[in-house]
Amino acid sequence: MSAQANRSTRPRLEFWYEFASTYSYLAVMRIEAAAAAAGVDVAWRPFLLGPVFMALGWNDSPFNIYPPKGRYMWRDLARLADKYDLPFRLPSQFPRNGLLAARVALVGVDGGWVAPFSRAVMRANFAEDRDIGDRQVIADLLGALDLPVDEILAQAGTPENKQALRAQTERAAEIGLFGAPSFRVGEELFWGNDRLEDALAWAGAHAAVAGGR
Amino acid sequence: MSAQANRSTRPRLEFWYEFASTYSYLAVMRIEAAAAAAGVDVAWRPFLLGPVFMALGWNDSPFNIYPPKGRYMWRDLARLADKYDLPFRLPSQFPRNGLLAARVALVGVDGGWVAPFSRAVMRANFAEDRDIGDRQVIADLLGALDLPVDEILAQAGTPENKQALRAQTERAAEIGLFGAPSFRVGEELFWGNDRLEDALAWAGAHAAVAGGR
Repeated sequence: MSAQANRSTRPRLEFWYEFASTYSYLAVMRIEAAAAAAGVDVAWRPFLLGPVFMALGWNDSPFNIYPPKGRYMWRDLARLADKYDLPFRLPSQFPRNGLLAARVALVGVDGGWVAPFSRAVMRANFAEDRDIGDRQVIADLLGALDLPVDEILAQAGTPENKQALRAQTERAAEIGLFGAPSFRVGEELFWGNDRLEDALAWAGAHAAVAGGR
Repeated sequence: MSAQANRSTRPRLEFWYEFASTYSYLAVMRIEAAAAAAGVDVAWRPFLLGPVFMALGWNDSPFNIYPPKGRYMWRDLARLADKYDLPFRLPSQFPRNGLLAARVALVGVDGGWVAPFSRAVMRANFAEDRDIGDRQVIADLLGALDLPVDEILAQAGTPENKQALRAQTERAAEIGLFGAPSFRVGEELFWGNDRLEDALAWAGAHAAVAGGR
């Protein structure tokens, strides 16, 4: 997103995620350490799954539409959180509304604080059972990061920023995304927290292509 | 399935797979070596995804129903085959009819040749673009394994064997399966080729429970 990131000669990976998404939780918590170890830069791409799912004919999370998938996902998530040593608490509501968090995260991409903010939101949603769709919760999370809360919330609500999130979500569909988290290296798409390591390895092995984009 | 497997004191994993399933291809080719290295016995459970998908409201593979998922899957499969050093050739038909292969595999569970037969069928479908729904193709694969072709095909077509496959497929839905490959250790379910290693580790760590079942 920033000019600085584009000037980097290190391999780069686009990280597409949604704050309501369970497997995005795992990836958001893991990606900075994993990418640093692999020598890969991360371009954070918060977006909304809702419109992407609507285009596929789903008006809710597939984990709610297909109960066996949902039952499995919650058990799988608990096991994986344990494996990665991440906190996990079953949210009392799923999916939560990630719109405001995504708008704020977009401000944070330019501000340089998208990573810690995203982790705070994910922890609130999936480890603390807090409603990330609530403006006060987002304000509290920003405040805990010593960020200028009112200024950021105002910026998140401008027509320009709202339009930027819409454009990013449309872009997600254009590049073939159908779920989150997804990773992209050049034209190469990887879907799911399970593919984080493969995507980083791909970025490292195709550094010339990825760095040149 | 066999009395011998039940008497084993080694940890055991149930391996549920379908011959038409792309990610089952990867798991079928990998599981024997991976399980042997982990010291885990494998109970092969061929079943049919069709009835399971129908119960979820899908009358075709989700990879055909949702084109972005399908496009991604084929690219992902090619990359993974490369990673695992497995041959892969885009099948000219998908999904192929795995009914006869599953009936024959069920005979092979008791006969002790289910693993090599399953690998031969998967290779035919996903590396050689052969129609595994064709009786002659299945006969050729059995013949190449030096097995009594006519006897096995006759046994596969008995009412008892057909009923056994129906029962196994119903059992799949009962235990919460919604896709293939799936792995089960005790009551613990793991979905997808990506989870093979986690499932084997779970079997090893919970050997007393798994072995006692």
